[in-house]
Amino acid sequence: MESKSEPNEWSSGVWAHLTAVRQRSPLVQCITNFVSMDLVANTLLSAGASPAMVHSVVEIPDFTPHIQALCVNVGTLTPNWLPSMKAAAELASNLGKPWVLDPAAVSCSGFRLKACLELVELKPTVIKGNGSEIIALSSASPGQTKGADSSHESTDAIEAAKSLAESSGAIVAVSGAVDIVTDGKKVIGVHNGTKMMQKITATGCSLAGLIAAFLAIDPLRALEATVSAMSVFGIAGELGVAMAKGPGSLRMHLIDSLYGLDETTVLNLVNITRLG
Amino acid sequence: MESKSEPNEWSSGVWAHLTAVRQRSPLVQCITNFVSMDLVANTLLSAGASPAMVHSVVEIPDFTPHIQALCVNVGTLTPNWLPSMKAAAELASNLGKPWVLDPAAVSCSGFRLKACLELVELKPTVIKGNGSEIIALSSASPGQTKGADSSHESTDAIEAAKSLAESSGAIVAVSGAVDIVTDGKKVIGVHNGTKMMQKITATGCSLAGLIAAFLAIDPLRALEATVSAMSVFGIAGELGVAMAKGPGSLRMHLIDSLYGLDETTVLNLVNITRLG
Amino acid sequence: MESKSEPNEWSSGVWAHLTAVRQRSPLVQCITNFVSMDLVANTLLSAGASPAMVHSVVEIPDFTPHIQALCVNVGTLTPNWLPSMKAAAELASNLGKPWVLDPAAVSCSGFRLKACLELVELKPTVIKGNGSEIIALSSASPGQTKGADSSHESTDAIEAAKSLAESSGAIVAVSGAVDIVTDGKKVIGVHNGTKMMQKITATGCSLAGLIAAFLAIDPLRALEATVSAMSVFGIAGELGVAMAKGPGSLRMHLIDSLYGLDETTVLNLVNITRLG
Repeated sequence: MESKSEPNEWSSGVWAHLTAVRQRSPLVQCITNFVSMDLVANTLLSAGASPAMVHSVVEIPDFTPHIQALCVNVGTLTPNWLPSMKAAAELASNLGKPWVLDPAAVSCSGFRLKACLELVELKPTVIKGNGSEIIALSSASPGQTKGADSSHESTDAIEAAKSLAESSGAIVAVSGAVDIVTDGKKVIGVHNGTKMMQKITATGCSLAGLIAAFLAIDPLRALEATVSAMSVFGIAGELGVAMAKGPGSLRMHLIDSLYGLDETTVLNLVNITRLG
Repeated sequence: MESKSEPNEWSSGVWAHLTAVRQRSPLVQCITNFVSMDLVANTLLSAGASPAMVHSVVEIPDFTPHIQALCVNVGTLTPNWLPSMKAAAELASNLGKPWVLDPAAVSCSGFRLKACLELVELKPTVIKGNGSEIIALSSASPGQTKGADSSHESTDAIEAAKSLAESSGAIVAVSGAVDIVTDGKKVIGVHNGTKMMQKITATGCSLAGLIAAFLAIDPLRALEATVSAMSVFGIAGELGVAMAKGPGSLRMHLIDSLYGLDETTVLNLVNITRLG
Repeated sequence: MESKSEPNEWSSGVWAHLTAVRQRSPLVQCITNFVSMDLVANTLLSAGASPAMVHSVVEIPDFTPHIQALCVNVGTLTPNWLPSMKAAAELASNLGKPWVLDPAAVSCSGFRLKACLELVELKPTVIKGNGSEIIALSSASPGQTKGADSSHESTDAIEAAKSLAESSGAIVAVSGAVDIVTDGKKVIGVHNGTKMMQKITATGCSLAGLIAAFLAIDPLRALEATVSAMSVFGIAGELGVAMAKGPGSLRMHLIDSLYGLDETTVLNLVNITRLG
């Protein structure tokens, strides 16, 4: 990948986004999986946002109009949760509120893949997954002629992400060794983060929640807000792993670091490049 | 607020309550929200109690008769959970076992408010919420003529708490910068705790569980037991935050501190006053 | 209990098992209780395995054929979860994949006891519980003439475990001051671990998940794999408690220690004996 480094431009934007989240404390509704609820909520709190784990379909008409952003994650999907996800997503879209779809383990069943495709129809602002998930969702989306790639090289993920972004109208974010964010044309690489974060359950889900919080405070620049959230979470991971002895302590330091991030650290550590 | 400090009287009571929880390890059934189950259970274990997350309506007739106290929290309420909560609450009340209602985010929907009002009808021993929750529940309760206050100043919360205590017959506990406990007449202030605990998800739910454990060992003095639980939890938070670098490490130190509390520390740090 | 120490024989086996889990990263499906999902997933990740919390009955036909092992835990059982557990267990058994049953709090209701007995019919490879659970399940199993023992002395637990192993065909593992593993004839004692682990919720559930991961990489030697998993988890606890100030920090150090275990440490600390 060719890298065109542009640190200064991005750094100040990342810090401005984080500052806005802290100042405005956006209310982020999370309909997420059981495994991740605790870490997603703590991630949002540490970043300065206000998480709300409201998932009952009967509460959505009353509650969702008050939120600033929504995050939907299908990690422990069952048929009785899908109507809530759809109702919240549809209402968010109709009200012009940004929302994030995390198609966690989309390939694990036909049911889940179909559910994710239906959720994509409801116009998520951002779709965030790992390489395998984005490739699977992209190749199953309408208008795709290629089958799912069996190799999940970065290059494949980029092409899948661009294709999914074009067909869905969403910003597509792919977490990995280098995080990728694309609107279907521009491709941005976020080089922050640490490999050990994959050894903590629900870090991917937490990132999805964090992206929703950043969208809440800059909804018209979804690509930039997504890039900022990924960079901030990655930087907190980098600071955390420097203090950690393993995934248990990394989880703790990640939250502490996210809470304590200051301007100098953010400006020094942001590592974002244009990849295409 | 006028404070009439009476440390010695309260301190020994707090320590006696904690000692009794440790010695008798009361079985506390928790029907709580998904986000909080882990921290509620760990809080109770660290305090010396025995948590049991039993929520299926089919298990309540067999299980609830064996408990020493019950905690019901509506944080992720769905219609299919409500019958369990009601069945357990009704059985606890009928069997003379103390139970705590945590009306978490009671205002987030009409469904949740109605559910909480129905639960209040089942005679909770203690209702514990933050200022907004207590004000909302109080103003929606039968016999109230004032609408919900939009400002949640401490004074409003105290009046709402007293009013709710009178109409419901429950002790009402309000968490905040100063925690308030009232039986509708007496008003006690618990000045322990640390602001950063609000940055950890489920600390409020955990406090509700802890109150249930303290009620279990002193059911006839519900106000005093509630005050003790709030002071103990607050002290653990104060000790924790002195060691913490952020909400991640505070969560860990809070549990460690609760587990390790000794008599000298408790007697020195209890900060309880009569407010009215 | 008479102990016949045979450290060298067992030690190398424990290390070989852990190494295999790390190298092959088995996919372990966990249908576990809400309280434990986070810690079970993090335990498996730290050990090198790949957890998958897939519990919807509609996903099992697609997903379960791809797993290497299954763990079923009834800790927050409701009637609508039981069909998933049975479907996954039956499919695992039919496909020759090892699976672990954790009859958590089996005695808390007639519903739960009946459910566990039905799950035992589906031929778990390993049944793991504490003394009370194994005694309750054993005495309720077909062919048992004795009632449940009210005293849960180790000796009673051993006899109950042997009896359950014989009637069910499963390896039975009993966690306690000394962990017991039996195939109904041989009885192995695992002397690793630390008492404070009982003050952390879901450590028992996490051990069940870890056993599943070890079964995945040595399915034909289920007794040895179970013994190894229990020893590894206990050693991580011993290392963790040496650094911990209470259950909060033990939880963190347990995960870190499990992640970082090296050969010398394992070989030095394995403490396994033949008890009968």
